[in-house]
Amino acid sequence: MNAEVIAIGTELLLGFVVNTNTTSLGRMLARLGIDCTRQVTVGDNPARLSEAIQTALGRADLVITCGGLGPTVDDVTLETIGRATGRRLILNRPILRGIEARFKRQKIRMPASNRRQGLLPEGAVPFPNQLGTAPGFLLRLKNSKILVALPGPPAEMLPMVEQHLVPRLKKLSGGRILRSRTLKLTGATESEVDAKVRDLLALEGAATVGIYAHPGQVDLRITASGGSEREVKRQIATVERRILARVRGLFYGADEETLEGVVGQLLKKNRKTLAVAESCTGGLVSERITRVSGSSAYFLGSVVSYSNEIKSIGLSVPPLLLRRHGAVSPQIAGAMAEGTRRLAGSDFGLAVTGIAGPTGGSKAKPVGLVYIALNWAGGTRITESLFSGNRAIIRFKASQAALNLLRLHLLK
Amino acid sequence: MNAEVIAIGTELLLGFVVNTNTTSLGRMLARLGIDCTRQVTVGDNPARLSEAIQTALGRADLVITCGGLGPTVDDVTLETIGRATGRRLILNRPILRGIEARFKRQKIRMPASNRRQGLLPEGAVPFPNQLGTAPGFLLRLKNSKILVALPGPPAEMLPMVEQHLVPRLKKLSGGRILRSRTLKLTGATESEVDAKVRDLLALEGAATVGIYAHPGQVDLRITASGGSEREVKRQIATVERRILARVRGLFYGADEETLEGVVGQLLKKNRKTLAVAESCTGGLVSERITRVSGSSAYFLGSVVSYSNEIKSIGLSVPPLLLRRHGAVSPQIAGAMAEGTRRLAGSDFGLAVTGIAGPTGGSKAKPVGLVYIALNWAGGTRITESLFSGNRAIIRFKASQAALNLLRLHLLK
Repeated sequence: MNAEVIAIGTELLLGFVVNTNTTSLGRMLARLGIDCTRQVTVGDNPARLSEAIQTALGRADLVITCGGLGPTVDDVTLETIGRATGRRLILNRPILRGIEARFKRQKIRMPASNRRQGLLPEGAVPFPNQLGTAPGFLLRLKNSKILVALPGPPAEMLPMVEQHLVPRLKKLSGGRILRSRTLKLTGATESEVDAKVRDLLALEGAATVGIYAHPGQVDLRITASGGSEREVKRQIATVERRILARVRGLFYGADEETLEGVVGQLLKKNRKTLAVAESCTGGLVSERITRVSGSSAYFLGSVVSYSNEIKSIGLSVPPLLLRRHGAVSPQIAGAMAEGTRRLAGSDFGLAVTGIAGPTGGSKAKPVGLVYIALNWAGGTRITESLFSGNRAIIRFKASQAALNLLRLHLLK
Repeated sequence: MNAEVIAIGTELLLGFVVNTNTTSLGRMLARLGIDCTRQVTVGDNPARLSEAIQTALGRADLVITCGGLGPTVDDVTLETIGRATGRRLILNRPILRGIEARFKRQKIRMPASNRRQGLLPEGAVPFPNQLGTAPGFLLRLKNSKILVALPGPPAEMLPMVEQHLVPRLKKLSGGRILRSRTLKLTGATESEVDAKVRDLLALEGAATVGIYAHPGQVDLRITASGGSEREVKRQIATVERRILARVRGLFYGADEETLEGVVGQLLKKNRKTLAVAESCTGGLVSERITRVSGSSAYFLGSVVSYSNEIKSIGLSVPPLLLRRHGAVSPQIAGAMAEGTRRLAGSDFGLAVTGIAGPTGGSKAKPVGLVYIALNWAGGTRITESLFSGNRAIIRFKASQAALNLLRLHLLK
């Protein structure tokens, strides 16, 4: 079974609103093992919408429209579906009564325009709307194709999908399921990862692997489909083992796991505490660590030392050392890491100093140069990196490298 | 002139990634008065992509593809465009040298697969990529149609669009223009703002107003179209004056302005310096302030005090005060603000302490309770708020309120 999604709304074409509905519907279809081959967005324009619906019905078994079911004149989906499928619009009394009751509850007089929302194409299965007035519906067409219409506001659409659409599609999709698992890697470029797993990216068959690059991170996504949850999980696990054997230390977590979450778990497991000192990242490392609920169990705090004074007073970095080496140097990174560890009385001190740009770089110390230091009672590790990208990306990559340095140390 | 956008990537169809590229491109086209009639998303599938390109070229004057230009085997856009337009792929030496130089700068050996990114369809105008390896390009076809290919990562695509595509499209489009201006408000809910401007939201004519709510922020977007830049700007300015007269202190900036940027400008203008102390926001306030390039001119640093020890030692908060009132209290917020101001020797100390949740709340001090304090040589201001939302939203709202407290003080 394959599907196409049609999003309707001029505001989407004009870029006023990010289209998260197709993302949600894409995820829902993938979960059910229904192959979504195309998403189309058109404006509130009957001719283009009609053309889009007919083209989609010519190609796909299931077509889902989203948006344009409201009571106003620029909501054209209902009439257009009626015309495109040759179905009359018929008043559905229970739906109309539901809409009327909704206005009554809110003590608002129902505008005449809302009466139109009680209309449905002949033969449609209505999906009542718990959180708005526009009902959705499912229409089985003669050639066994299915057309589904959903309202546009995500708060109305999402519960309707879970309550009414998913149960019906589960029956129709005939049990085939599709699952995916994302392996998250850091510490190597997309090309370096690609070189290690290129043959697996060309896998054809029940399980496939895709590679996706983000700043400071490369994802490998394994996708498999099959007749049962067990079969699909086994296929994914087989490919995962082959990947992990090649990427080793680069892999830090899967799916919803985050680098800051994984580092937090490792600290907790090892009963270690952490303090941070940040210069160019400006608080990002601490902010990421404290996104994790419960991080107060291992994170004691940090000092963001944008001025040399704070490095000296707050972190006990000797002013002489600052003058001799400059704030962006391995020596200062080391001194910051030790300073924050001693200040907080933690097991680890993690420090970042660098030049995030766009200004402040020099030939000797260019934009993107970042020193990261990890200090513990037994020693210090200091790394030098040259990150590319704009200010935000350099800062993110530096935070990623800092968290990863700690992760790799905790794994040893 | 009309346009269609084709986004390429199986991860978009599967809902793994929200498609913000078409949103950005839609906004860019609207700004130039180019009518975007359709957005299509297809997977990394040569046959479907080829069909989508040919259909779009049959309908639109301008077709923009986005994604699939990377170095890996599942990046099929370049070859597919070559085949769909009947153009050979030719090595572009300057582009290749740029890619090679990029690897050299990063001291990484260039993988063979990246060489392929030096290829362009015959006759294409290359768009060099400042932040990645894949170049974009513009191809004029025989029937005077234009095909543009852009890389998928937004960090690479957006600067390329502004630098290379927009100037070229400006020359080509001519005629009617559409502009919008977003007024950003903080310190009131959507309903409160709505009550102040409801009549303006119903404006019909050349200029319209929309309201959009985000956590800790409400946007009012004025949109106008007309024959000339001057005419459109005048229409927007008229509506803007009417709005500003009603929302006063809630308005902090427009369009690309950020709250942290506006606060930074005010500090700079007043020649004042700032230090921060954060508890529940974990570094977010500092991280936002330091997103602004040049923030070292007014931001001295911060202490993220997750443990009481750091509050006492790093910020000189008396342990007795902590025991008496607890870390989440107006007294401790005030002591933190003064402590960080004294430590850094800054003009202002800004402090946040609260309960971000989901755990740690109590009947007396529920999740979402946040105290914010601003301390200066002449006094202290302390606010109490109860924010709703999850951990991330509560933290963001707290950072927004902290920055806004400083902004309103600097405006006095």
